[in-house]
Amino acid sequence: MAPCLSVFFLFLIIFSATLTTPANSLPTFFIRPAYQSLIKQSKTLKPKLPFKTHYFPQTLDHFTFQPKSSKIFYQKYLINSHYWHNGAPIFVYTGNEGDIDWFAANTGFMLDIAPKFKALLVFIEHRFYGESMPFGEKTNQSANTLGYLNSQQALADFAVLIRSLKQNLSSEASPVVVFGGSYGGMLAAWFRLKYPHITIGALASSAPILHFDKIIPWSSFYDAVSQDFKDVSWNCYEVIKGSWAELEAMSTRKEALAELSKAFRTCKSLHSTASARDWLWTAFVYTAMVNYPTEANFLKPLPAYPVQQMCKIIDKFPSGATKLSRTFAAASLYYNYSRSENCFEIEHEVDPHGLHGWEWQTCTEMVMPMTRSKESMFPPSEFDYKEFAEQCQTKYGVLPQPHWITTEFGGQRIEKVLKRFGSNIIFSNGMQDPWSRGGVLKNISASIIALVTEKGAHHVDFRSATKGDPDWLIHQRRQEVEIIQKWLNEYYADLRLS
Amino acid sequence: MAPCLSVFFLFLIIFSATLTTPANSLPTFFIRPAYQSLIKQSKTLKPKLPFKTHYFPQTLDHFTFQPKSSKIFYQKYLINSHYWHNGAPIFVYTGNEGDIDWFAANTGFMLDIAPKFKALLVFIEHRFYGESMPFGEKTNQSANTLGYLNSQQALADFAVLIRSLKQNLSSEASPVVVFGGSYGGMLAAWFRLKYPHITIGALASSAPILHFDKIIPWSSFYDAVSQDFKDVSWNCYEVIKGSWAELEAMSTRKEALAELSKAFRTCKSLHSTASARDWLWTAFVYTAMVNYPTEANFLKPLPAYPVQQMCKIIDKFPSGATKLSRTFAAASLYYNYSRSENCFEIEHEVDPHGLHGWEWQTCTEMVMPMTRSKESMFPPSEFDYKEFAEQCQTKYGVLPQPHWITTEFGGQRIEKVLKRFGSNIIFSNGMQDPWSRGGVLKNISASIIALVTEKGAHHVDFRSATKGDPDWLIHQRRQEVEIIQKWLNEYYADLRLS
Repeated sequence: MAPCLSVFFLFLIIFSATLTTPANSLPTFFIRPAYQSLIKQSKTLKPKLPFKTHYFPQTLDHFTFQPKSSKIFYQKYLINSHYWHNGAPIFVYTGNEGDIDWFAANTGFMLDIAPKFKALLVFIEHRFYGESMPFGEKTNQSANTLGYLNSQQALADFAVLIRSLKQNLSSEASPVVVFGGSYGGMLAAWFRLKYPHITIGALASSAPILHFDKIIPWSSFYDAVSQDFKDVSWNCYEVIKGSWAELEAMSTRKEALAELSKAFRTCKSLHSTASARDWLWTAFVYTAMVNYPTEANFLKPLPAYPVQQMCKIIDKFPSGATKLSRTFAAASLYYNYSRSENCFEIEHEVDPHGLHGWEWQTCTEMVMPMTRSKESMFPPSEFDYKEFAEQCQTKYGVLPQPHWITTEFGGQRIEKVLKRFGSNIIFSNGMQDPWSRGGVLKNISASIIALVTEKGAHHVDFRSATKGDPDWLIHQRRQEVEIIQKWLNEYYADLRLS
Repeated sequence: MAPCLSVFFLFLIIFSATLTTPANSLPTFFIRPAYQSLIKQSKTLKPKLPFKTHYFPQTLDHFTFQPKSSKIFYQKYLINSHYWHNGAPIFVYTGNEGDIDWFAANTGFMLDIAPKFKALLVFIEHRFYGESMPFGEKTNQSANTLGYLNSQQALADFAVLIRSLKQNLSSEASPVVVFGGSYGGMLAAWFRLKYPHITIGALASSAPILHFDKIIPWSSFYDAVSQDFKDVSWNCYEVIKGSWAELEAMSTRKEALAELSKAFRTCKSLHSTASARDWLWTAFVYTAMVNYPTEANFLKPLPAYPVQQMCKIIDKFPSGATKLSRTFAAASLYYNYSRSENCFEIEHEVDPHGLHGWEWQTCTEMVMPMTRSKESMFPPSEFDYKEFAEQCQTKYGVLPQPHWITTEFGGQRIEKVLKRFGSNIIFSNGMQDPWSRGGVLKNISASIIALVTEKGAHHVDFRSATKGDPDWLIHQRRQEVEIIQKWLNEYYADLRLS
């Protein structure tokens, strides 16, 4: 087995290729963003957002001054000024790896709290995602264009845009608080670190800033996914863990594809048993990430605590049933909770949120090595850097820079550095979310606060408040509001003094 | 008059062109780095430095991941490991706009204190200066190559090199303190701000980080030069102030060039009276900058307190003497204190320290507008941004980005930001140095300290201790040592705890 892992924040998946290819061949590396059914939902359920869309003429390259660096592209951003008045705070969402409408639709928290703070809301799209494509249709063509897609350029975009916006609003004294979830949360935290003159504080939700180099054990992510299932039911965990061998055994049979196509109710006949494995895998990983306490629709429509629901399905099968039939039934919850699917488009990948660029980012700076330990419910594997690098070289003609993020933003000692040097950052994490293991989980100082919830999942605090929200979530959001209020009070007190 | 100023840290000067060209024509913009005599000295007096020279394979472009970004160039750095042992501190000089040997030779302070701290000394050359030329002889050819010359890339170079060096020395726990003077001081302070995970503190000597945008009045620099002379003698100031009109009146005469060539003892006949003016101007500005309390040879060999000596020369002339003859005599102190010159190579410019790239930096990010007020001893002038931009466009095909430095590193509110967010920076300034007006002159917090000396000049604290050093200078250096010792104590105490 020659597995090679990388991760996509939301639509990750990397597999070892044991099922369909011989050992030591190249695994399917690059990500399968999603499956057909998602696009239907994103079209039908796309909410009408209370934002006005703008486009900012942004500099392509902030860090060289070549004539071509001054090329302009149009960076999309959303504004809600309903509650704002001149001098009041500006809340900026530092966009991550997808179209900004999607993140705005799933960050209702900012809309919920805007009236209290009389805040201007600004959602800035990350360069090379959504509509913010510097080279139009050619944007993703090669490393020569993709080269400008990275976190430092994105942070500089935010700085330039925010400064210009404040100038245009004639509200330069307005304090700016940045918000971000997942990769956007890393950007928010890094923005506070690198641009403290532009933002007074950052709320970084589910931001795995420690998921680089060798800061945390590489097995953390998959161990955490497995722990979510183990916590619900040992049997559930064991069934999933055992299902891969069943699938592998099946794949050696002549009629494997036909049998699997039937068993997995595929719309079209499968071409590879690996597709079925990936499809299952995706369901378990993402369900762990979005194991929210209420019914929600971030990646897919799902019931409250979907991991529990999946395990219920697995556990209630009669004792003679195969593991594979149980995991298929569990995965169907992920793909078909709304019961709108008659069959599954397992091999038809789509990218409804314009997430394509993340592949490039993992091949350059966002190298977050992952392994699968024997304790995980996935087949064990190591991280083979050489193989990973070769794949990036083949695909893009560039080599990953696995130490760059820790050089630029801090590595092993980052928590010490934050303690001595940083201030005004909230790191919020939910322990259901496997990404939480790369997050800051302990208070670092009086003003660098870790808000950790045992039952929380991937940036659950950023979702709109709903009637069914549990007390711990209400409490977490209230703490966030109080801390932000404190930052603002200090800022305005300071302003009055000067 | 259509004057246009920019400034080169050490070897700058820009002039209005009133003497030889009609009003509103383009002034002589780009800098005259130095005059012939300097090169002789730099060759003859070049000291043998106690450093070993190394070359680090450095990445050309840290902020894009295009295939060509991974091009390597060889960055020069100097090492002295005489006093060091594993785990002991590393003192890094963040090189500025010239060859690194020159800065090493003029930063004897670090060598003086190395034994006390058992410090490893590292002097890193700034990219595009000295021998660290990414494109060899083609380095300065066009904006396509020069584009990679800027402060952010330089800071990233330092980060990458320091990290690699510590790894190679197997001394990753060694604390790093950065030192820099002038532009190098800005880099040291910014490095502490942007890379606090790599350095525990910065000593930024004569670092005018406030000399951007509209943070300080644009007339500050020339007002400060004038103040130096005014403080010594009102007559001296008045003579210099009046000499420009004499020179201008003279320049209208038919025989002006012949007369001036004779009066200024030029080796070759002058082609322009502006050259004579620039030559005088340079002498006054640089002498103010290096108005050191002891005999020294940084830009030129000069006596102790050379401004006083210049004014003595001016003041002791008989009352009938012209102002121009007095200023020529005063300037001769600057150019010929060692009395080695029989004539002056006024129109023959040389660049002995490889400073050429600074022109590019002023045309891109290092936009430090300067005007000359009526109170200065130089002809009054405004800053004409449009004209300045046109000249940069013509010369390099790029437009200056006058707000970029304040966007990237902080502007109006930088002192507040440092107070709330920064720590462990010493800003040392001497008020004789006109650059001090753009420096941090007041303590910002308990650990961001301003050390200001009334009689100090351009990074005088960085010079080797000499027997004649006045008490205030000895005291200033002692304070610096004590503060650095405190940072190191805190660091090691912290390390023992973890």
